[in-house]
Amino acid sequence: MKKGIAASKGYAIGNALIKEENSINVEKRYVKNIYKEEKRFEKALELSKKQLKEIKIKSEREIGSDKAEVFESHIMLLEDEEFAGAVKVKIKIEHINAEAALYDVVSSYIKIFNSMKDEYMKERSTDVKDVGNRILNNLAGQVFPLNEIENDKVVIVAHDLTPSDTALLDKSKVVAFVTDIGGGTSHSSIMARTLEIPAVVGTMDITDSVRNGDLLIVDGVEGTVIVNPDENIIKEYRAKMKAYNMDIDKLKSLADVETVTKSGKKVDILANIGMPQDVEQVLENGGEGIGLFRTEFLYINRTGMPSEEEQFEAYKYVVEKMEDKPVVIRTLDIGGDKKLPYLSLPEEMNPFLGYRAIRLCLDREDIFKPQLRAMLRASAFGNLRIMFPMISSVEEFLRAKDVLKQCMKELEKEGRTFNRNLKIGIMVETPAAAIEAEELSRYVDFFSIGTNDLIQYTLAADRMNEKISYLYNPMHPAVLKLIKKTIDAAHKNGKLCAMCGEMAGDESSIPVLMEYGLDEFSMSASSILRARQIIMEN
Amino acid sequence: MKKGIAASKGYAIGNALIKEENSINVEKRYVKNIYKEEKRFEKALELSKKQLKEIKIKSEREIGSDKAEVFESHIMLLEDEEFAGAVKVKIKIEHINAEAALYDVVSSYIKIFNSMKDEYMKERSTDVKDVGNRILNNLAGQVFPLNEIENDKVVIVAHDLTPSDTALLDKSKVVAFVTDIGGGTSHSSIMARTLEIPAVVGTMDITDSVRNGDLLIVDGVEGTVIVNPDENIIKEYRAKMKAYNMDIDKLKSLADVETVTKSGKKVDILANIGMPQDVEQVLENGGEGIGLFRTEFLYINRTGMPSEEEQFEAYKYVVEKMEDKPVVIRTLDIGGDKKLPYLSLPEEMNPFLGYRAIRLCLDREDIFKPQLRAMLRASAFGNLRIMFPMISSVEEFLRAKDVLKQCMKELEKEGRTFNRNLKIGIMVETPAAAIEAEELSRYVDFFSIGTNDLIQYTLAADRMNEKISYLYNPMHPAVLKLIKKTIDAAHKNGKLCAMCGEMAGDESSIPVLMEYGLDEFSMSASSILRARQIIMEN
Repeated sequence: MKKGIAASKGYAIGNALIKEENSINVEKRYVKNIYKEEKRFEKALELSKKQLKEIKIKSEREIGSDKAEVFESHIMLLEDEEFAGAVKVKIKIEHINAEAALYDVVSSYIKIFNSMKDEYMKERSTDVKDVGNRILNNLAGQVFPLNEIENDKVVIVAHDLTPSDTALLDKSKVVAFVTDIGGGTSHSSIMARTLEIPAVVGTMDITDSVRNGDLLIVDGVEGTVIVNPDENIIKEYRAKMKAYNMDIDKLKSLADVETVTKSGKKVDILANIGMPQDVEQVLENGGEGIGLFRTEFLYINRTGMPSEEEQFEAYKYVVEKMEDKPVVIRTLDIGGDKKLPYLSLPEEMNPFLGYRAIRLCLDREDIFKPQLRAMLRASAFGNLRIMFPMISSVEEFLRAKDVLKQCMKELEKEGRTFNRNLKIGIMVETPAAAIEAEELSRYVDFFSIGTNDLIQYTLAADRMNEKISYLYNPMHPAVLKLIKKTIDAAHKNGKLCAMCGEMAGDESSIPVLMEYGLDEFSMSASSILRARQIIMEN
Repeated sequence: MKKGIAASKGYAIGNALIKEENSINVEKRYVKNIYKEEKRFEKALELSKKQLKEIKIKSEREIGSDKAEVFESHIMLLEDEEFAGAVKVKIKIEHINAEAALYDVVSSYIKIFNSMKDEYMKERSTDVKDVGNRILNNLAGQVFPLNEIENDKVVIVAHDLTPSDTALLDKSKVVAFVTDIGGGTSHSSIMARTLEIPAVVGTMDITDSVRNGDLLIVDGVEGTVIVNPDENIIKEYRAKMKAYNMDIDKLKSLADVETVTKSGKKVDILANIGMPQDVEQVLENGGEGIGLFRTEFLYINRTGMPSEEEQFEAYKYVVEKMEDKPVVIRTLDIGGDKKLPYLSLPEEMNPFLGYRAIRLCLDREDIFKPQLRAMLRASAFGNLRIMFPMISSVEEFLRAKDVLKQCMKELEKEGRTFNRNLKIGIMVETPAAAIEAEELSRYVDFFSIGTNDLIQYTLAADRMNEKISYLYNPMHPAVLKLIKKTIDAAHKNGKLCAMCGEMAGDESSIPVLMEYGLDEFSMSASSILRARQIIMEN
């Protein structure tokens, strides 16, 4: 029995299929026939492009368009003539094999991206690497046959899984996966949860302990893997699986049910989304609205600002799809760790404590106003609410509201319709906003507690920093006090208090938040049903 | 009349002496006699070294050894054989003039330092530039005659002043200075306050509006400069000067007075120090103890850790000098923006929210224990208290105290003496600590509120970030609430509450802090007398 980290819940029994680590020979060889070498490269390039396009379509369908975005940038690199050109020139001039030429070009790309200060550009080096490996694999004719699995009920065993690997998993055949490395928030774990298959990660050495075809029981609840179990254990797990699946079915039946606590209080469960298309999954899971519509998708992966019209269409699409259910749209939260290549933001020592979100928007009305105008115009088509991020004082909120008022006046003059009485709220994510919640609640229509940032600032701990992430603790008494204070303050002035940080969807936190009287829980669509069940049982 | 920023209080009347901007020709010339060129360079190098040594001695005497440290690193660069060697090799090989060779070497050094990720190393590029300019000046025979001023009562007028410039000011002749650029916290402003001469900075174009010898009135209270004033204005200002100086004398008479409020409460005013030698200035200004002894000076500007013995000597020196007055020593607060070249700390996205201070110490007992042992041993020689920085929970404090207990046991076994009952306190500088102050106050002996960080975290605003530093506001109601909460919590459990952030010495904040019942104010030695006056008048 191997112990690891329970990364995605559920039980599975299946036969191991080990994903071998690639060890492709990129030795530099002199080649006489450079024409043939060039053709080999072109063929591998075309094949890679075809694979990625398939992966992208599959991903969009199965895991959502925002998560499939990464493959679009991979395809763009393959279609970049400078990239392909550089490899071909290298083959011709140096008379070397395609692998070596590709390896050199990829290495120099990685070096360039890594030397850039912009975090966004740095991340591109991972993409280049992933694409490079794909072409190398295709040059070698090695394709990990994840999409050609013959057996039913296969457990994928791998050192680690890349985005392309997981996107290719054939869900009808793959019942679970287990990896050597990774943690609860690693890419593979998130994918497993999205695909709703059990996964155990961080086993350290599962690839050394298992052979192809071994029978594996994957326990995604306890985080264990049992290799070649005996009959009794198999029986035991078949019973567990049955109970678990019944529970899942019961959960699915909650999609159309109102969320009412045992004591009779109606609570709303909403969803956080990052793309308009995500609305489908929200409706399937019975989300009672959108509690956080992040608008950054409109700004990233492009070369210039989105137009007001483009934004309007996106917002309108979501509010119309959600019919009369509330849709809380957050104004741009860029800056901090999220940079835009076409917006030259200053390098900052501490981006989390820097020029971002509402701070940037108040400073840049050329960015802020078109977004507010688009939101206002979309408000005519449904129940749209506007939310400002990173507010730290009443004055800051009033400044933002003032810009909104200006936009309203403009639209009026232009004869455009919008909901004059739309609700305007703020994210409570700075300690200052939580401490001053009572004063702020006089001015705003609603609060939405952003726990991710609130916890980071309160404990002065960047949760992405591995050296000190142990300090990031949603249950720290200081954090709980700020949350309670915020909810109480809202209620004192008859305002609604929501939460859209990860804590709102965390099973162990929900009972505490209910106790505090939180009105709205907003979370990823896949967490809604479980949260509803917990709330109804409490 | 020119308007600028009041950078250092006081009034002065004197004649303008304009510091011309250097415009040294560093054109590359072919030289035949490279031997002569090499000699020229060596001579300029020696002269620069001599000047810097004089500046350093003068600075140590007049502005304190911590501020003079910068010149030590300048001297080290001049004595670095690789640096001088590179210039000489360039002269010989390229047959070029010393200026051009020096310029090239300095440029490449700057480029290397700037490309480093470590903030500490990046700052070194400013030093190299300063040193390079000094040698260039000496090669050209141009020396800004700040140390050879003939007139009495000179007002230095400059675009900006470097550390070397200000260190050279002859205080017996220079009565004020005025610059085009700079703000209240720029190097020149801090220097002016330390030297206790009035200064107006950020006038934009004073160097264009004034000629050498013009009569100037510098009003460091209002932040104005009057050029060639008439008799009436001069009379008016002579009266102001007289009143101001009387006030200063009155202030000096407060050095030996106890700080008692009008309502009869005894308040303690202590000092923040960064070096053992700073104790002199504290005693001169009637400091009632050391409220914050920063220990980082022991660790910076060197190639390895300081020994326990070395630390012990430094702590012992201070506690003995302060006799029975309290000396609060803070354990190492490195990490964040302060890095050590010999301690390879991880690169962090948000160093202020990262691996620093107590977090680093708890992780690295090899660093923490020798410091604690040194402090304990020094506690036998005076009234030493230990303070842990960046505490965010009771558990963290108990862990730190546990390490201290281990050190006590070790010292006992070794038969060493120390004060077993020494007071142990914490900095309250994370919002979490302030919010949890009541719980924490059961465990600690005292609090010291670190407002600089507390404000930054509460408002999620890095005050060094120019784009958003406007958000850094000690009077933000959320900040004031946290301060009051901390003081109340300490008193509830019969503990002492001090403050060692900049706010404690801020004239406009002192009355509020008194109202809240703060027990101890700790500030820079030069602020003590003014603070005492304000407290006694309230």
